[in-house]
Amino acid sequence: MDFTLYTAGTPNGWKISIALEELKFKYRAKSVDLSGDEQKEAWFLSLNPNGKIPVLVDHTKDDLPVFESGAILLYLADQDPQEQLLPKAVPERAKVLSWLFLQMAALGPMQGQLNAFLRYLPGEYKVATERFISETERLYTVLEKQLENRLWLAADRFTVADIAFFPWVYMHDYCGISVAKRPNLAAWIQRMLDRPAVLRGLDVPSKNPITSARGDPKKMEELVELARKKQMCSLML
Amino acid sequence: MDFTLYTAGTPNGWKISIALEELKFKYRAKSVDLSGDEQKEAWFLSLNPNGKIPVLVDHTKDDLPVFESGAILLYLADQDPQEQLLPKAVPERAKVLSWLFLQMAALGPMQGQLNAFLRYLPGEYKVATERFISETERLYTVLEKQLENRLWLAADRFTVADIAFFPWVYMHDYCGISVAKRPNLAAWIQRMLDRPAVLRGLDVPSKNPITSARGDPKKMEELVELARKKQMCSLML
Repeated sequence: MDFTLYTAGTPNGWKISIALEELKFKYRAKSVDLSGDEQKEAWFLSLNPNGKIPVLVDHTKDDLPVFESGAILLYLADQDPQEQLLPKAVPERAKVLSWLFLQMAALGPMQGQLNAFLRYLPGEYKVATERFISETERLYTVLEKQLENRLWLAADRFTVADIAFFPWVYMHDYCGISVAKRPNLAAWIQRMLDRPAVLRGLDVPSKNPITSARGDPKKMEELVELARKKQMCSLML
Repeated sequence: MDFTLYTAGTPNGWKISIALEELKFKYRAKSVDLSGDEQKEAWFLSLNPNGKIPVLVDHTKDDLPVFESGAILLYLADQDPQEQLLPKAVPERAKVLSWLFLQMAALGPMQGQLNAFLRYLPGEYKVATERFISETERLYTVLEKQLENRLWLAADRFTVADIAFFPWVYMHDYCGISVAKRPNLAAWIQRMLDRPAVLRGLDVPSKNPITSARGDPKKMEELVELARKKQMCSLML
Protein backbone atom coordinates (compact mmCIF):
# COMPACT_ATOMS: atom_id res chain seq x y z
CA MET A 1 0.00 0.00 0.00
CA ASP A 2 1.32 3.44 -0.94
CA PHE A 3 -1.21 5.44 1.08
CA THR A 4 -3.30 5.15 4.23
CA LEU A 5 -6.46 7.26 4.35
CA TYR A 6 -7.80 8.02 7.82
CA THR A 7 -11.43 8.76 7.18
CA ALA A 8 -15.07 8.47 8.21
CA GLY A 9 -18.42 8.57 6.40
CA THR A 10 -18.53 12.34 5.82
CA PRO A 11 -18.41 14.49 2.66
CA ASN A 12 -14.81 15.57 3.28
CA GLY A 13 -13.73 11.97 3.68
CA TRP A 14 -15.54 10.84 0.50
CA LYS A 15 -13.69 13.45 -1.57
CA ILE A 16 -10.42 11.66 -0.93
CA SER A 17 -11.61 8.10 -1.46
CA ILE A 18 -13.15 9.23 -4.77
CA ALA A 19 -9.84 10.81 -5.85
CA LEU A 20 -7.87 7.71 -4.85
CA GLU A 21 -10.28 5.49 -6.79
CA GLU A 22 -10.17 7.75 -9.86
CA LEU A 23 -6.36 7.71 -9.83
CA LYS A 24 -6.24 3.96 -9.13
CA PHE A 25 -3.69 4.57 -6.37
CA LYS A 26 -2.97 1.77 -3.92
CA TYR A 27 -4.42 2.69 -0.54
CA ARG A 28 -6.07 1.33 2.51
CA ALA A 29 -8.83 3.17 4.36
CA LYS A 30 -8.81 3.28 8.15
CA SER A 31 -12.05 4.28 9.80
CA VAL A 32 -11.73 6.87 12.58
CA ASP A 33 -14.39 6.71 15.31
CA LEU A 34 -15.64 10.31 15.42
CA SER A 35 -18.34 9.69 18.00
CA GLY A 36 -15.63 8.28 20.28
CA ASP A 37 -13.46 11.38 19.60
CA GLU A 38 -10.66 9.22 18.23
CA GLN A 39 -9.60 12.18 16.07
CA LYS A 40 -8.67 14.08 19.24
CA GLU A 41 -6.31 11.37 20.53
CA ALA A 42 -2.57 12.09 20.65
CA TRP A 43 -1.66 9.66 17.86
CA PHE A 44 -4.12 11.33 15.52
CA LEU A 45 -3.10 14.89 16.51
CA SER A 46 0.46 13.97 15.57
CA LEU A 47 -0.88 13.48 12.02
CA ASN A 48 -3.23 16.48 12.03
CA PRO A 49 -2.88 19.04 14.86
CA ASN A 50 -6.39 20.27 13.98
CA GLY A 51 -7.92 16.92 14.96
CA LYS A 52 -10.15 16.35 11.91
CA ILE A 53 -10.52 13.71 9.23
CA PRO A 54 -9.51 13.15 6.47
CA VAL A 55 -5.75 12.63 6.80
CA LEU A 56 -3.67 10.96 4.11
CA VAL A 57 -0.38 9.29 4.99
CA ASP A 58 2.02 8.82 2.08
CA HIS A 59 4.14 5.73 2.76
CA THR A 60 6.27 6.41 -0.31
CA LYS A 61 7.45 9.68 1.31
CA ASP A 62 8.56 8.59 4.79
CA ASP A 63 4.97 8.38 6.02
CA LEU A 64 4.28 12.04 5.30
CA PRO A 65 0.87 13.10 6.68
CA VAL A 66 -1.28 15.54 4.66
CA PHE A 67 -4.42 17.07 6.17
CA GLU A 68 -7.37 19.21 4.96
CA SER A 69 -9.31 17.60 2.12
CA GLY A 70 -8.43 20.38 -0.36
CA ALA A 71 -4.71 19.99 0.32
CA ILE A 72 -4.95 16.21 -0.04
CA LEU A 73 -6.79 16.53 -3.38
CA LEU A 74 -4.06 18.85 -4.72
CA TYR A 75 -1.33 16.62 -3.34
CA LEU A 76 -2.74 13.45 -4.92
CA ALA A 77 -3.52 15.11 -8.23
CA ASP A 78 0.05 16.39 -8.51
CA GLN A 79 1.45 12.89 -7.82
CA ASP A 80 -0.17 11.69 -11.02
CA PRO A 81 2.17 12.11 -14.01
CA GLN A 82 -0.81 11.97 -16.38
CA GLU A 83 -2.38 15.00 -14.67
CA GLN A 84 -5.81 13.36 -14.97
CA LEU A 85 -7.43 15.44 -12.23
CA LEU A 86 -5.44 18.69 -12.35
CA PRO A 87 -3.52 20.14 -15.30
CA LYS A 88 -0.14 21.64 -14.45
CA ALA A 89 -0.54 24.29 -17.17
CA VAL A 90 -2.07 27.74 -16.78
CA PRO A 91 -4.83 28.85 -17.42
CA GLU A 92 -6.60 25.54 -16.69
CA ARG A 93 -4.78 25.05 -13.40
CA ALA A 94 -5.73 28.50 -12.11
CA LYS A 95 -9.40 27.85 -12.88
CA VAL A 96 -9.40 24.51 -11.08
CA LEU A 97 -7.70 26.08 -8.04
CA SER A 98 -10.30 28.88 -7.89
CA TRP A 99 -13.21 26.43 -7.88
CA LEU A 100 -11.49 24.03 -5.49
CA PHE A 101 -10.97 26.83 -2.97
CA LEU A 102 -14.55 28.04 -3.44
CA GLN A 103 -15.76 24.63 -2.30
CA MET A 104 -13.35 24.54 0.63
CA ALA A 105 -13.88 28.11 1.86
CA ALA A 106 -17.57 28.59 1.08
CA LEU A 107 -19.84 25.66 0.23
CA GLY A 108 -18.29 23.26 2.77
CA PRO A 109 -18.33 25.60 5.78
CA MET A 110 -21.75 27.10 4.94
CA GLN A 111 -23.57 23.83 4.21
CA GLY A 112 -21.86 22.39 7.30
CA GLN A 113 -23.21 25.19 9.49
CA LEU A 114 -26.64 24.79 7.88
CA ASN A 115 -26.59 21.11 8.88
CA ALA A 116 -25.68 22.11 12.42
CA PHE A 117 -28.32 24.80 12.93
CA LEU A 118 -31.11 23.03 11.04
CA ARG A 119 -30.45 19.48 12.13
CA TYR A 120 -28.19 18.94 15.10
CA LEU A 121 -28.38 21.74 17.65
CA PRO A 122 -31.18 21.35 20.22
CA GLY A 123 -33.53 24.30 19.83
CA GLU A 124 -34.62 26.58 17.02
CA TYR A 125 -32.30 29.22 15.67
CA LYS A 126 -34.28 31.05 13.03
CA VAL A 127 -31.83 33.82 12.15
CA ALA A 128 -28.78 31.57 12.01
CA THR A 129 -30.61 28.86 10.07
CA GLU A 130 -31.99 31.35 7.54
CA ARG A 131 -28.56 32.91 7.14
CA PHE A 132 -26.98 29.58 6.23
CA ILE A 133 -29.92 28.47 4.05
CA SER A 134 -29.62 31.71 2.13
CA GLU A 135 -25.86 31.43 1.63
CA THR A 136 -26.02 27.74 0.68
CA GLU A 137 -28.83 28.42 -1.82
CA ARG A 138 -26.80 31.29 -3.29
CA LEU A 139 -23.80 29.00 -3.79
CA TYR A 140 -25.94 26.30 -5.44
CA THR A 141 -27.16 28.98 -7.84
CA VAL A 142 -23.54 29.92 -8.64
CA LEU A 143 -22.91 26.25 -9.48
CA GLU A 144 -26.09 26.01 -11.58
CA LYS A 145 -25.04 29.04 -13.65
CA GLN A 146 -21.49 27.79 -14.03
CA LEU A 147 -22.79 24.51 -15.46
CA GLU A 148 -24.75 26.20 -18.25
CA ASN A 149 -23.33 24.72 -21.46
CA ARG A 150 -20.56 23.01 -19.52
CA LEU A 151 -20.10 19.40 -18.45
CA TRP A 152 -17.68 20.02 -15.60
CA LEU A 153 -17.24 22.87 -13.13
CA ALA A 154 -13.76 24.25 -13.75
CA ALA A 155 -12.38 22.90 -17.03
CA ASP A 156 -13.28 21.04 -20.20
CA ARG A 157 -12.85 17.86 -18.25
CA PHE A 158 -13.48 16.24 -14.88
CA THR A 159 -11.09 17.64 -12.21
CA VAL A 160 -10.50 17.82 -8.47
CA ALA A 161 -12.94 20.77 -8.40
CA ASP A 162 -15.78 18.41 -9.35
CA ILE A 163 -14.61 15.90 -6.74
CA ALA A 164 -14.50 18.58 -4.02
CA PHE A 165 -18.06 19.79 -4.61
CA PHE A 166 -19.68 16.46 -5.28
CA PRO A 167 -20.05 14.81 -1.84
CA TRP A 168 -21.62 17.99 -0.39
CA VAL A 169 -23.99 18.46 -3.32
CA TYR A 170 -24.80 14.74 -3.22
CA MET A 171 -26.36 15.19 0.24
CA HIS A 172 -28.25 18.39 -0.59
CA ASP A 173 -31.63 17.12 0.60
CA TYR A 174 -30.12 16.19 3.97
CA CYS A 175 -30.30 19.92 4.78
CA GLY A 176 -33.38 20.78 2.76
CA ILE A 177 -31.67 22.17 -0.34
CA SER A 178 -33.32 21.18 -3.64
CA VAL A 179 -31.90 20.73 -7.11
CA ALA A 180 -35.37 20.26 -8.67
CA LYS A 181 -35.19 23.69 -10.35
CA ARG A 182 -31.49 23.35 -11.09
CA PRO A 183 -31.37 21.09 -14.14
CA ASN A 184 -27.69 21.72 -14.90
CA LEU A 185 -26.68 20.71 -11.42
CA ALA A 186 -28.96 17.66 -11.48
CA ALA A 187 -27.38 16.54 -14.77
CA TRP A 188 -23.89 17.07 -13.33
CA ILE A 189 -24.78 14.92 -10.29
CA GLN A 190 -25.85 12.16 -12.68
CA ARG A 191 -22.61 12.50 -14.69
CA MET A 192 -20.68 12.09 -11.45
CA LEU A 193 -22.73 9.02 -10.50
CA ASP A 194 -22.03 7.51 -13.91
CA ARG A 195 -18.36 7.23 -12.94
CA PRO A 196 -17.62 3.83 -11.34
CA ALA A 197 -14.73 5.30 -9.32
CA VAL A 198 -17.08 7.89 -7.79
CA LEU A 199 -19.49 5.16 -6.72
CA ARG A 200 -16.66 3.14 -5.21
CA GLY A 201 -15.28 6.20 -3.39
CA LEU A 202 -18.67 7.02 -1.87
CA ASP A 203 -18.70 3.62 -0.16
CA VAL A 204 -15.46 4.21 1.81
CA PRO A 205 -14.94 3.45 4.67
CA SER A 206 -18.32 1.63 4.59
CA LYS A 207 -21.57 1.58 2.64
CA ASN A 208 -22.78 5.14 2.17
CA PRO A 209 -26.02 5.77 4.10
CA ILE A 210 -26.99 8.73 1.90
CA THR A 211 -27.22 6.54 -1.20
CA SER A 212 -30.33 4.67 -0.10
CA ALA A 213 -31.93 7.70 1.60
CA ARG A 214 -31.70 10.15 -1.31
CA GLY A 215 -35.16 11.33 -2.33
CA ASP A 216 -36.79 9.48 0.58
CA PRO A 217 -37.68 12.02 3.31
CA LYS A 218 -38.45 9.33 5.91
CA LYS A 219 -35.13 7.55 5.52
CA MET A 220 -33.33 10.90 5.47
CA GLU A 221 -34.95 11.85 8.80
CA GLU A 222 -33.77 8.55 10.28
CA LEU A 223 -30.22 9.38 9.21
CA VAL A 224 -30.48 12.82 10.79
CA GLU A 225 -31.74 11.27 14.03
CA LEU A 226 -28.78 8.88 14.04
CA ALA A 227 -26.37 11.77 13.43
CA ARG A 228 -27.96 13.75 16.29
CA LYS A 229 -27.35 10.87 18.67
CA LYS A 230 -23.71 10.81 17.61
CA GLN A 231 -23.47 14.54 18.39
CA MET A 232 -22.58 15.38 14.81
CA CYS A 233 -23.17 19.03 15.76
CA SER A 234 -19.68 19.39 17.18
CA LEU A 235 -18.14 17.20 14.48
CA MET A 236 -19.55 19.32 11.69
CA LEU A 237 -17.90 22.54 12.84
CA MET B 1 1.71 46.35 -14.82
CA ASP B 2 1.63 42.53 -14.84
CA PHE B 3 -1.32 42.16 -12.46
CA THR B 4 -4.46 43.99 -11.41
CA LEU B 5 -5.76 43.19 -7.94
CA TYR B 6 -9.46 43.91 -7.37
CA THR B 7 -9.68 44.28 -3.65
CA ALA B 8 -11.08 46.07 -0.59
CA GLY B 9 -9.96 46.63 3.00
CA THR B 10 -10.70 43.12 4.28
CA PRO B 11 -8.49 40.28 5.55
CA ASN B 12 -8.88 38.26 2.36
CA GLY B 13 -7.85 41.26 0.26
CA TRP B 14 -4.80 42.01 2.44
CA LYS B 15 -3.49 38.46 1.95
CA ILE B 16 -2.97 39.14 -1.74
CA SER B 17 -1.43 42.60 -1.47
CA ILE B 18 1.01 41.20 1.11
CA ALA B 19 1.99 38.36 -1.26
CA LEU B 20 2.40 40.75 -4.19
CA GLU B 21 4.58 43.05 -2.08
CA GLU B 22 6.67 40.14 -0.79
CA LEU B 23 7.26 38.87 -4.33
CA LYS B 24 7.91 42.41 -5.64
CA PHE B 25 5.52 41.74 -8.54
CA LYS B 26 4.31 44.70 -10.59
CA TYR B 27 0.64 45.29 -9.86
CA ARG B 28 -1.99 47.90 -9.45
CA ALA B 29 -4.75 47.67 -6.85
CA LYS B 30 -8.29 48.61 -7.80
CA SER B 31 -10.67 49.26 -4.94
CA VAL B 32 -14.08 47.58 -5.22
CA ASP B 33 -16.97 49.35 -3.47
CA LEU B 34 -18.47 46.58 -1.35
CA SER B 35 -21.08 48.75 0.35
CA GLY B 36 -22.31 49.73 -3.14
CA ASP B 37 -22.39 46.02 -4.14
CA GLU B 38 -19.96 46.66 -6.99
CA GLN B 39 -18.79 43.03 -6.63
CA LYS B 40 -22.25 41.87 -7.77
CA GLU B 41 -22.15 43.86 -11.02
CA ALA B 42 -21.95 41.99 -14.33
CA TRP B 43 -18.39 43.09 -15.14
CA PHE B 44 -17.17 41.78 -11.80
CA LEU B 45 -19.13 38.51 -12.01
CA SER B 46 -17.40 37.86 -15.35
CA LEU B 47 -14.14 37.79 -13.34
CA ASN B 48 -15.54 35.89 -10.35
CA PRO B 49 -18.98 34.25 -10.68
CA ASN B 50 -19.11 34.09 -6.88
CA GLY B 51 -19.09 37.90 -6.62
CA LYS B 52 -16.43 38.33 -3.93
CA ILE B 53 -13.11 40.10 -3.64
CA PRO B 54 -10.21 39.52 -4.04
CA VAL B 55 -9.75 38.78 -7.74
CA LEU B 56 -6.37 38.85 -9.45
CA VAL B 57 -6.13 39.46 -13.18
CA ASP B 58 -2.89 38.29 -14.80
CA HIS B 59 -2.16 40.53 -17.79
CA THR B 60 0.80 38.36 -18.79
CA LYS B 61 -1.64 35.46 -19.41
CA ASP B 62 -4.33 37.03 -21.61
CA ASP B 63 -5.96 38.77 -18.64
CA LEU B 64 -6.65 35.51 -16.84
CA PRO B 65 -8.80 36.07 -13.72
CA VAL B 66 -8.07 34.06 -10.56
CA PHE B 67 -10.48 34.16 -7.61
CA GLU B 68 -10.53 32.92 -3.98
CA SER B 69 -7.64 34.25 -1.91
CA GLY B 70 -6.15 30.78 -1.33
CA ALA B 71 -6.08 30.04 -5.07
CA ILE B 72 -4.50 33.44 -5.79
CA LEU B 73 -1.81 32.84 -3.17
CA LEU B 74 -0.93 29.47 -4.72
CA TYR B 75 -1.03 30.93 -8.20
CA LEU B 76 1.28 33.83 -7.37
CA ALA B 77 3.69 31.70 -5.35
CA ASP B 78 4.07 29.25 -8.24
CA GLN B 79 4.82 32.11 -10.68
CA ASP B 80 7.96 32.87 -8.67
CA PRO B 81 10.95 30.87 -9.99
CA GLN B 82 12.74 31.38 -6.67
CA GLU B 83 9.88 29.62 -4.80
CA GLN B 84 10.18 32.19 -1.99
CA LEU B 85 6.69 31.62 -0.61
CA LEU B 86 6.01 27.99 -1.55
CA PRO B 87 8.54 25.23 -2.18
CA LYS B 88 7.77 22.95 -5.11
CA ALA B 89 9.33 19.96 -3.32
CA VAL B 90 7.55 17.48 -1.08
CA PRO B 91 7.36 17.26 1.96
CA GLU B 92 7.53 21.04 2.50
CA ARG B 93 4.93 21.78 -0.15
CA ALA B 94 2.42 19.34 1.34
CA LYS B 95 2.79 20.95 4.77
CA VAL B 96 2.25 24.44 3.40
CA LEU B 97 -0.84 23.28 1.49
CA SER B 98 -2.34 21.69 4.62
CA TRP B 99 -1.96 24.89 6.65
CA LEU B 100 -3.09 27.13 3.80
CA PHE B 101 -6.31 25.12 3.45
CA LEU B 102 -6.83 25.11 7.21
CA GLN B 103 -6.92 28.89 7.12
CA MET B 104 -9.24 28.96 4.12
CA ALA B 105 -11.67 26.27 5.27
CA ALA B 106 -11.67 26.86 9.03
CA LEU B 107 -10.23 30.04 10.55
CA GLY B 108 -11.52 32.36 7.82
CA PRO B 109 -15.13 31.11 7.74
CA MET B 110 -15.38 30.68 11.53
CA GLN B 111 -13.88 34.04 12.51
CA GLY B 112 -15.99 35.61 9.74
CA GLN B 113 -19.18 34.14 11.22
CA LEU B 114 -18.07 35.22 14.69
CA ASN B 115 -17.74 38.79 13.39
CA ALA B 116 -21.23 38.55 11.93
CA PHE B 117 -23.03 37.16 14.99
CA LEU B 118 -21.09 39.19 17.57
CA ARG B 119 -20.79 42.45 15.70
CA TYR B 120 -23.02 42.99 12.73
CA LEU B 121 -26.37 41.24 13.01
CA PRO B 122 -29.03 43.22 14.86
CA GLY B 123 -30.04 41.26 17.95
CA GLU B 124 -28.37 38.81 20.29
CA TYR B 125 -27.65 35.29 19.19
CA LYS B 126 -26.13 33.59 22.20
CA VAL B 127 -25.90 30.02 20.91
CA ALA B 128 -24.52 30.97 17.50
CA THR B 129 -22.08 33.49 18.95
CA GLU B 130 -20.79 31.03 21.54
CA ARG B 131 -20.43 28.37 18.89
CA PHE B 132 -18.22 30.57 16.73
CA ILE B 133 -16.26 31.97 19.70
CA SER B 134 -15.54 28.43 20.80
CA GLU B 135 -14.40 27.27 17.37
CA THR B 136 -12.28 30.38 16.73
CA GLU B 137 -10.63 30.04 20.15
CA ARG B 138 -9.91 26.38 19.43
CA LEU B 139 -8.22 27.27 16.15
CA TYR B 140 -6.10 29.98 17.81
CA THR B 141 -4.98 27.32 20.27
CA VAL B 142 -4.00 25.03 17.38
CA LEU B 143 -1.87 27.90 16.00
CA GLU B 144 -0.32 28.63 19.42
CA LYS B 145 0.72 24.98 19.79
CA GLN B 146 2.04 24.78 16.26
CA LEU B 147 4.30 27.78 16.94
CA GLU B 148 6.01 26.16 19.91
CA ASN B 149 9.70 26.13 19.01
CA ARG B 150 8.90 27.29 15.49
CA LEU B 151 9.21 30.66 13.80
CA TRP B 152 6.70 30.07 10.98
CA LEU B 153 3.51 28.03 10.74
CA ALA B 154 4.15 25.44 8.06
CA ALA B 155 7.86 25.29 7.22
CA ASP B 156 11.31 26.40 8.37
CA ARG B 157 10.65 29.66 6.61
CA PHE B 158 7.97 32.24 5.88
CA THR B 159 5.38 30.88 3.38
CA VAL B 160 1.93 31.55 1.93
CA ALA B 161 0.50 29.75 4.98
CA ASP B 162 1.75 32.58 7.22
CA ILE B 163 0.36 35.15 4.79
CA ALA B 164 -3.06 33.45 4.73
CA PHE B 165 -3.47 33.40 8.51
CA PHE B 166 -1.96 36.77 9.28
CA PRO B 167 -4.65 39.31 8.31
CA TRP B 168 -7.31 37.39 10.26
CA VAL B 169 -5.12 36.95 13.33
CA TYR B 170 -4.07 40.61 13.04
CA MET B 171 -7.68 41.69 13.73
CA HIS B 172 -8.28 39.21 16.57
CA ASP B 173 -9.48 41.83 19.06
CA TYR B 174 -12.07 43.06 16.56
CA CYS B 175 -14.10 39.98 17.54
CA GLY B 176 -12.98 39.70 21.14
CA ILE B 177 -10.31 37.04 20.73
CA SER B 178 -7.18 37.58 22.82
CA VAL B 179 -3.59 36.56 22.26
CA ALA B 180 -2.49 37.72 25.74
CA LYS B 181 -2.05 34.13 26.92
CA ARG B 182 -0.70 32.99 23.59
CA PRO B 183 2.92 34.14 23.64
CA ASN B 184 3.98 32.12 20.57
CA LEU B 185 1.24 33.64 18.48
CA ALA B 186 1.97 37.14 19.77
CA ALA B 187 5.65 36.72 18.84
CA TRP B 188 4.67 35.45 15.39
CA ILE B 189 2.43 38.51 14.86
CA GLN B 190 5.42 40.70 15.70
CA ARG B 191 7.65 38.75 13.30
CA MET B 192 5.09 39.35 10.56
CA LEU B 193 4.93 43.07 11.39
CA ASP B 194 8.73 43.27 11.21
CA ARG B 195 8.48 42.54 7.47
CA PRO B 196 8.26 45.77 5.45
CA ALA B 197 6.32 44.03 2.66
CA VAL B 198 3.66 42.90 5.15
CA LEU B 199 3.22 46.47 6.38
CA ARG B 200 2.94 47.74 2.81
CA GLY B 201 0.43 45.03 1.90
CA LEU B 202 -1.78 45.84 4.89
CA ASP B 203 -2.23 49.38 3.57
CA VAL B 204 -3.76 48.29 0.23
CA PRO B 205 -6.07 49.60 -1.20
CA SER B 206 -5.92 52.35 1.47
CA LYS B 207 -4.55 52.96 4.95
CA ASN B 208 -5.51 50.03 7.19
CA PRO B 209 -8.02 51.09 9.87
CA ILE B 210 -7.14 48.15 12.13
CA THR B 211 -3.53 49.34 12.54
CA SER B 212 -4.42 52.40 14.64
CA ALA B 213 -7.26 50.66 16.52
CA ARG B 214 -5.35 47.58 17.71
CA GLY B 215 -5.30 47.41 21.50
CA ASP B 216 -7.64 50.42 21.78
CA PRO B 217 -11.16 49.18 22.61
CA LYS B 218 -12.79 52.57 21.95
CA LYS B 219 -11.32 52.95 18.48
CA MET B 220 -12.14 49.31 17.74
CA GLU B 221 -15.80 49.93 18.67
CA GLU B 222 -15.86 52.90 16.29
CA LEU B 223 -14.61 50.65 13.50
CA VAL B 224 -17.29 48.08 14.29
CA GLU B 225 -19.95 50.80 14.21
CA LEU B 226 -18.72 51.93 10.80
CA ALA B 227 -18.77 48.34 9.50
CA ARG B 228 -22.33 47.90 10.81
CA LYS B 229 -23.48 50.91 8.85
CA LYS B 230 -21.92 49.45 5.72
CA GLN B 231 -23.86 46.21 6.31
CA MET B 232 -20.70 44.19 6.63
CA CYS B 233 -22.89 41.35 7.92
CA SER B 234 -23.80 40.23 4.43
CA LEU B 235 -20.33 40.93 3.07
CA MET B 236 -18.67 38.73 5.66
CA LEU B 237 -20.59 35.63 4.71
